[in-house]
Amino acid sequence: MSQPLLRALQGEVQAVPPLWFMRQAGRFLPEYRALRAKVTFEQLLYDSDLAAEVTLQPVRRFPQLDGAIIFSDILVILDALGCQVTIPEGGPRLGRTLDQIPLDQPLDERVFEPVQAAIRKVKAQLPPHVAMLGFAGAPWTLLAYGLEGKGSKTWSRAKAFLHAEPVKAMAWLDRLADAAARLLNLHIEAGAQAVQLFDTWAGELDPQDYAQFSLPSAHRALAQVTAAPTLFFARTGYLPQALETMPCQGLAVPWQVPMAEARQRFPRMALQGNLDPVSLLAGPEVATRKARQIVEVMKGHPHVFNLGHGLLPETNPDTLAAVIEVVKGK
Amino acid sequence: MSQPLLRALQGEVQAVPPLWFMRQAGRFLPEYRALRAKVTFEQLLYDSDLAAEVTLQPVRRFPQLDGAIIFSDILVILDALGCQVTIPEGGPRLGRTLDQIPLDQPLDERVFEPVQAAIRKVKAQLPPHVAMLGFAGAPWTLLAYGLEGKGSKTWSRAKAFLHAEPVKAMAWLDRLADAAARLLNLHIEAGAQAVQLFDTWAGELDPQDYAQFSLPSAHRALAQVTAAPTLFFARTGYLPQALETMPCQGLAVPWQVPMAEARQRFPRMALQGNLDPVSLLAGPEVATRKARQIVEVMKGHPHVFNLGHGLLPETNPDTLAAVIEVVKGK
Repeated sequence: MSQPLLRALQGEVQAVPPLWFMRQAGRFLPEYRALRAKVTFEQLLYDSDLAAEVTLQPVRRFPQLDGAIIFSDILVILDALGCQVTIPEGGPRLGRTLDQIPLDQPLDERVFEPVQAAIRKVKAQLPPHVAMLGFAGAPWTLLAYGLEGKGSKTWSRAKAFLHAEPVKAMAWLDRLADAAARLLNLHIEAGAQAVQLFDTWAGELDPQDYAQFSLPSAHRALAQVTAAPTLFFARTGYLPQALETMPCQGLAVPWQVPMAEARQRFPRMALQGNLDPVSLLAGPEVATRKARQIVEVMKGHPHVFNLGHGLLPETNPDTLAAVIEVVKGK
Repeated sequence: MSQPLLRALQGEVQAVPPLWFMRQAGRFLPEYRALRAKVTFEQLLYDSDLAAEVTLQPVRRFPQLDGAIIFSDILVILDALGCQVTIPEGGPRLGRTLDQIPLDQPLDERVFEPVQAAIRKVKAQLPPHVAMLGFAGAPWTLLAYGLEGKGSKTWSRAKAFLHAEPVKAMAWLDRLADAAARLLNLHIEAGAQAVQLFDTWAGELDPQDYAQFSLPSAHRALAQVTAAPTLFFARTGYLPQALETMPCQGLAVPWQVPMAEARQRFPRMALQGNLDPVSLLAGPEVATRKARQIVEVMKGHPHVFNLGHGLLPETNPDTLAAVIEVVKGK
């Protein structure tokens, strides 16, 4: 009998929803900060013992979690393409942008070996009810970082490139889709039981560009992942109806979208989400009230409880514990 | 016969849509930067000659503009409530936050006198086809700044306050709604022919909090403005259907929402928008193509051409000129 999280992705309605949290392995945990104080972020990423440890930290602290997402970063794919990614405090920096790299540059899969090793190590230690999760960045999000060379407020360079060089942009999006699919499949080979594709910058595109560039390339990536269920998180303030035909089993709903609306508009899919991460900063009373409402609205539909975006570093772990208790009905 | 912009807000369908641009008086213009180099931002705000000059700069450069929005800042209301607002390069800073100010603190309307004087000066110099526009910040956006004391990535302090002190929050939102209405009416008394309410941080609230706190307070503000047509800009990635019943004549559509969808869902109102400001950074070819599509979609509906958010400082004025030519069909 498979884990509750996987059963939800298979379309099973459960009395108590499985749950995990985006960015559950990270800065909001004192034990993470203690470890991170001793090593660089890159060491955490590329040392499989450290990555495994960080992945397991939230599972140890919150035994009711139903998923363990491997500690990694969406930019490892750009690193494997030669972008020389570093992730200092101020956010990612690329030594070379994608326009300086040939389109047929081979993907250096050795870059992915530590994360595969980490998945194997975590898997060996996970309690049986916890599903192992892998992930990758979606093609448009990778292209956006790959062209800007760092985070951006407007992503104007990347957006201009889509229009100035549409053929090249489409070719890169295909390439990045294949790379993302390859990474997700490597995660699955190493032991991931479900995987999530993150289109973090989907909401930066206007509806037309989103439909032309972001959705088809994410579709191409997800279609190549068939050995485990897939979740798709397109971070936008709305959810275009076209998502209903994406080749995935679960849709992660951003916090801006009411779950009742998502449930009505995406009847085919398991839905994941969608508590506003900022609500956890308002303390346990507010956060649990909002969590309870989401659980209530989703009764009778396959549901994975989660946030509608990643946990914020300033979250109090006790507030998260209170939310977990409420969702688990104890 | 009134100006094209006002006729659109009265529901008139025009063969060529009137147009103006959010943040048209600002940093993207070399003539603005030249003036700004010599004075502080506060001097521009509170010296009526300087504010009038900055308001007129885009009208002189682009004679086809149909609206001149007075140069001011949404935070003048907080200044009039004693928050001691300064606006250095890094963004606004408040000397005192709203929780340090009594709810019955009188609104110091002398703070608004320079902007009223500026409106009168601009009005005397405007070409007859150009409508004079006033504006104010919406209650939730003012409360958010008022509680944080500066800009924020998460607005977590303000959002937590809504739940920790809902009665006080509602009282402040009412107070700020009345202040915003008062300012808009003062703009109208001074000569503004239409006014826009800006709910810049509406999209930071989850749908429930938005419906509970932001919408009703904006409604209260708009309902008190009857001497001139009103426009409402709620900056969210989606447009809740409840906007259809707001007491305003025009709805400013964010760039994330397709105009065709807005037209279908908000049949009662004139619609303003909604070119993505980043598309202007991609050069005239991309920007004019997207502008033309918006004009095409809006044929047969009362339409004010504009952006879906403010002009970016790095915009090339020549690209804006190209967009104007295309919208005006020349």
